[in-house]
Amino acid sequence: MSDKKNFANETCHIALMPSGRQGQVRRDTNLLNAARDLGVELESICGGKQTCMKCQVVVEEGNFPKHGITSSAAHLSPLTTQEIEYFAGKQKVGWRLACAAKVLGDLLLTVPEESQARKQIIAKAASDRIIDINPAVRLLYVEVQPGEMTDSRGDWERLSQALVDQWDLHVLSIDIKALQMLQPALRDGDHAVTVTVWQDREVLRVQPGYHEGLYGLAADVGSTTIVVHLCDLRTGIVLSTQASMNTQVRYGEDLMSRVSYATSEPQGLARLNRAVILTLNDLAEKAAQSAGLSAEDIVDAVVVGNPVMQHILLGINPRELGGAPFSLAAAQALDLKARDIGLSLNPAARLHLLPLIAGHVGADNMAVQLAESPHEQEEIMLVVDVGTNAEIVLGNRERVLVASSPTGPAFEGAQITHGQRAAPGAIERVRIDPQTLEPRIRIIGYDEWIDPCNDAGVPAVVKVTGICGSGIIEAVAEMYLSGIINAGGLFEESAAERSPRIHYQGRTGEYQLVDAEISATGKPIVITQNDVRNIQLAKAALYAGTKLLMAHLDVEHVDRVLLAGAFGNFISPIHAMILGLIPDCDLEKVIAVGNAAGDGARFALLNRSLRKKAEELREWIQHISTPLEASFQDEFVAALNIPHARDAFPTLEGILPKPPEDKGRRHRNRIRDKLGA
Amino acid sequence: MSDKKNFANETCHIALMPSGRQGQVRRDTNLLNAARDLGVELESICGGKQTCMKCQVVVEEGNFPKHGITSSAAHLSPLTTQEIEYFAGKQKVGWRLACAAKVLGDLLLTVPEESQARKQIIAKAASDRIIDINPAVRLLYVEVQPGEMTDSRGDWERLSQALVDQWDLHVLSIDIKALQMLQPALRDGDHAVTVTVWQDREVLRVQPGYHEGLYGLAADVGSTTIVVHLCDLRTGIVLSTQASMNTQVRYGEDLMSRVSYATSEPQGLARLNRAVILTLNDLAEKAAQSAGLSAEDIVDAVVVGNPVMQHILLGINPRELGGAPFSLAAAQALDLKARDIGLSLNPAARLHLLPLIAGHVGADNMAVQLAESPHEQEEIMLVVDVGTNAEIVLGNRERVLVASSPTGPAFEGAQITHGQRAAPGAIERVRIDPQTLEPRIRIIGYDEWIDPCNDAGVPAVVKVTGICGSGIIEAVAEMYLSGIINAGGLFEESAAERSPRIHYQGRTGEYQLVDAEISATGKPIVITQNDVRNIQLAKAALYAGTKLLMAHLDVEHVDRVLLAGAFGNFISPIHAMILGLIPDCDLEKVIAVGNAAGDGARFALLNRSLRKKAEELREWIQHISTPLEASFQDEFVAALNIPHARDAFPTLEGILPKPPEDKGRRHRNRIRDKLGA
Repeated sequence: MSDKKNFANETCHIALMPSGRQGQVRRDTNLLNAARDLGVELESICGGKQTCMKCQVVVEEGNFPKHGITSSAAHLSPLTTQEIEYFAGKQKVGWRLACAAKVLGDLLLTVPEESQARKQIIAKAASDRIIDINPAVRLLYVEVQPGEMTDSRGDWERLSQALVDQWDLHVLSIDIKALQMLQPALRDGDHAVTVTVWQDREVLRVQPGYHEGLYGLAADVGSTTIVVHLCDLRTGIVLSTQASMNTQVRYGEDLMSRVSYATSEPQGLARLNRAVILTLNDLAEKAAQSAGLSAEDIVDAVVVGNPVMQHILLGINPRELGGAPFSLAAAQALDLKARDIGLSLNPAARLHLLPLIAGHVGADNMAVQLAESPHEQEEIMLVVDVGTNAEIVLGNRERVLVASSPTGPAFEGAQITHGQRAAPGAIERVRIDPQTLEPRIRIIGYDEWIDPCNDAGVPAVVKVTGICGSGIIEAVAEMYLSGIINAGGLFEESAAERSPRIHYQGRTGEYQLVDAEISATGKPIVITQNDVRNIQLAKAALYAGTKLLMAHLDVEHVDRVLLAGAFGNFISPIHAMILGLIPDCDLEKVIAVGNAAGDGARFALLNRSLRKKAEELREWIQHISTPLEASFQDEFVAALNIPHARDAFPTLEGILPKPPEDKGRRHRNRIRDKLGA
Repeated sequence: MSDKKNFANETCHIALMPSGRQGQVRRDTNLLNAARDLGVELESICGGKQTCMKCQVVVEEGNFPKHGITSSAAHLSPLTTQEIEYFAGKQKVGWRLACAAKVLGDLLLTVPEESQARKQIIAKAASDRIIDINPAVRLLYVEVQPGEMTDSRGDWERLSQALVDQWDLHVLSIDIKALQMLQPALRDGDHAVTVTVWQDREVLRVQPGYHEGLYGLAADVGSTTIVVHLCDLRTGIVLSTQASMNTQVRYGEDLMSRVSYATSEPQGLARLNRAVILTLNDLAEKAAQSAGLSAEDIVDAVVVGNPVMQHILLGINPRELGGAPFSLAAAQALDLKARDIGLSLNPAARLHLLPLIAGHVGADNMAVQLAESPHEQEEIMLVVDVGTNAEIVLGNRERVLVASSPTGPAFEGAQITHGQRAAPGAIERVRIDPQTLEPRIRIIGYDEWIDPCNDAGVPAVVKVTGICGSGIIEAVAEMYLSGIINAGGLFEESAAERSPRIHYQGRTGEYQLVDAEISATGKPIVITQNDVRNIQLAKAALYAGTKLLMAHLDVEHVDRVLLAGAFGNFISPIHAMILGLIPDCDLEKVIAVGNAAGDGARFALLNRSLRKKAEELREWIQHISTPLEASFQDEFVAALNIPHARDAFPTLEGILPKPPEDKGRRHRNRIRDKLGA
């Protein structure tokens, strides 16, 4: 101890930026281990073999105030040959591989973001969440002891031992598909392999030599649309997003008709199952190709869907979901092999299904909650996820309630004469001039407002294909504001007298929104009395469900409204409120969050602790069964009018027209000003 | 307590025959639970619902000496309606269902064998083992709470809860195939189902209502022959045994040619794999059909094979087994889904593969050891399992050694001019008259000795197809005893002068064992100089391996010799010893045990603790690698003669002819007397 040359017990002070973590480590400690000891996990696939080059750190020049270091040169072991070779062409002076350096003195280091093991992504979700990258699968590079005549263990046992020795990981099993490739990989990689391990317990893949590609698929299987995101599981980046119609549609537009098809047709379930599996396989292949990969590179997947979709996906007949008590086959999260349901990803790829909440509230809603986290908010948050049914989530960190409401598929464009899903050519915004009753529209894929009349000089490229969810909401709200329909949703004879666009017959009618010449089909696009009625039924169901949850939670006001699902990334909050789709709320806090279910699936793919969180949430969330609530019917009937209760919407004060008999121009002009366009 | 009518804490004395277990139980205890508390587990599938009728006990009449009971009538609660109905037609007076009866007083009961939960089978193996029936799968009848609107759990969660409540079993997971049938089963069974559980942790099958069929498959995949046993897993009974050629033979006769085919042909592995899988599926289907079942009824399987067979079965290229260091892909036991390797059993059926011991010593040998248990013996036991290679096991409870020896496939009939596997029509025994040199033979499937000459009046039905392992051993031994060949294995010119059956040419020759008229092919069946040479090489390899293990174990004598594998159920110990196939041993302790590997697979199917035992054995057994042993070559060369060292076989004293020049009749007659026939 008195001998200054005896370094055996000498310690050095290390500080790591930007985390600011610091502390003492023993001299001669490997820098990778030193950082780990101080709580800074550096990226490393090769585990310290100077192969993956992931654990780069920057040795900061200048003084290290606390200890007065002026040069760090002697405070680390010399550069290795590999480091010199690697950094030479890159002009990275002062950079080191942590695994190649030994600590010889006090140090101030910067860990660049790409070297940090725990990466994060900023979620684009409404609540701006930060998601740690911590997937269920990881890559480990290991060097395996070659076989010997005197060693009667198998290569798998030697690989297991290498994982213990080099990674301190006690893996339990190896998938048969990985076992099949183990020996060829060891041979080709000269006994060095990269293994893909799931949840630290099962080997899914063995690749010869060093590899760093790690990819996963998140999918949202909606009744109408299927969306997949191919993600880089090391960076969290979405490499490709692909969407397509759910080809099950050919066997039934809405959920109940698919349940009925599965129940009554002998091959019904098999056909429905095949349709979704083939679509998923096709999307996975497309996504992989567009990222320069193959579907076989995908080793983990998270799929979410409503209960009927998830049952069909798993080959389970959804019959019990067709009637009370709407029993789920299994509510809990499921961990499967993707191959077991016919998915063509990596032969050993894993598949995780988030838990279902209730007979009508699926894993897609659980994903929405993971994405938007009402359970973490102080504010009372309302999340309305509109698909064929609407799922309504209400609450905050104290308590979260969820219910489903039988809106029917009108908001998705189904049961609407010219309804369609949100896709290029679909009308997504509508304004109607209260005087002329002439419309203006915006369609997806064309950035200007259009006068959809045959003589308005609309560019020939513009062909309108139909009207999507957000378009129909604006259209009906505007029809009400311009006096085409009354608060009861009925066409007004007086309006028909004012414009040839309105065809009025007895107590029914229709409004011609787009003329034949601009329509993709060559026929006019109209909003019929029946369309209005279907939107009224849908919005009343939604509103009644929301009111029910507000009563259960004992709140009279919500702080924030998130609209997810069929409305896509755009909805006009004020039109939604005029229609009575959502309760009163500060308009700036009404936000469309797009495919939040797909986001949630992606987050659960990127971070395995969110899967656990979902299982906890399932136990914690309270499900309210709307059909059991006597008040639901009353609320529903009361909510059919547009808007159904003026005094419930202080935010709309001054915007809504006075009761029907008043159709004064000045009033409507004031609304125009507020609505813009 | 002073009140005699207060039974609350009163206990009753119960004795159960034939186990003799007895003790006190609380009054009012259910008799099924009472028996369990006293350590007597009664069979029960329904768990006490008077459905399975398995827990029958007999209430013994007469005195119960210790307590002086004269009538048991009042010592149990009255017969239930179900009991009266069930026992009425069966004249089973005094019989009760334990689950239906409450203990009201002291009792003496007999538990009939069929009511005992722990059934046993007496193994026909040489060591007369008793195997407890304790399979990896079990059946549990449960009543599941129906779904309710207010219960957002799924049916799987309700089934899990029922298993906890009714069976105290915390099952972890359900196979996707079982999940697919859960809801239909609950519906059809009116919420009562029978579940098949694997290792108390995974549900494999859900059947509506009450079921008691539980079946498993044990298979021995040999290079030449594949044998399956379909077993009733509740009784241990073999319901059907089916065997067929391994159709891989078309891609190569012996193991090394298959390894080479798998390595060099692009589709080689896939073809070999397909051949064995199709054969297994075919045999499983045949076995099931012959037992009035379908392959889908099979829920568990144990398959054993040598390392090359097992690798190919699992779709693993056996390339590494084709050369030093003969690395196994995985040595440990594997638990798979049968479907994952293409087996068509129950969709969720399990597949267990016993551990492999070394590069040339497979799970088939592990199965032989499970069947014959050298590790439990006091005596030094030698187990020789002859297939394409021979595996040699030597030891006792102190220590067990194992080695493989490159005998080649001669003992299986391969590389022998008219060799064939043991099947009807094959010569299995041979005697040669030392004076006339005329043969007598026994063939499989015909119960008499035959003089295989064209003029011997052999029944027309007898057609000899070839010569199997035991036949070739006797033939060569008899050829030596009768002076047709000498100790070096060469044909003797002098013998050729004595019989037209011997064709002698230079230093080579052949012996006509069967005339053309009796041969199935219409051509004579002969033993050639080359056949003798191949048998010499094979037996020398076997003997050298045995000597090597004896040296390692430091023993000069073995107490018992078991011959398993290609020899089938029959071998002549004395001929095996004359040939020098086995070391000296009391002839009465040399026993052929037939397909011991198939027996071992069956035992591991019937008793899950044997699977664990196999894993322990794998760690405990010492493998000796013959190619690494310098002494092996010396022993091998020394063992080529017939017999190679007269003084090594005191048992044969007086049986073996004197050195070749002595061909005295009197001496050979003495041998005749000993050999019989």
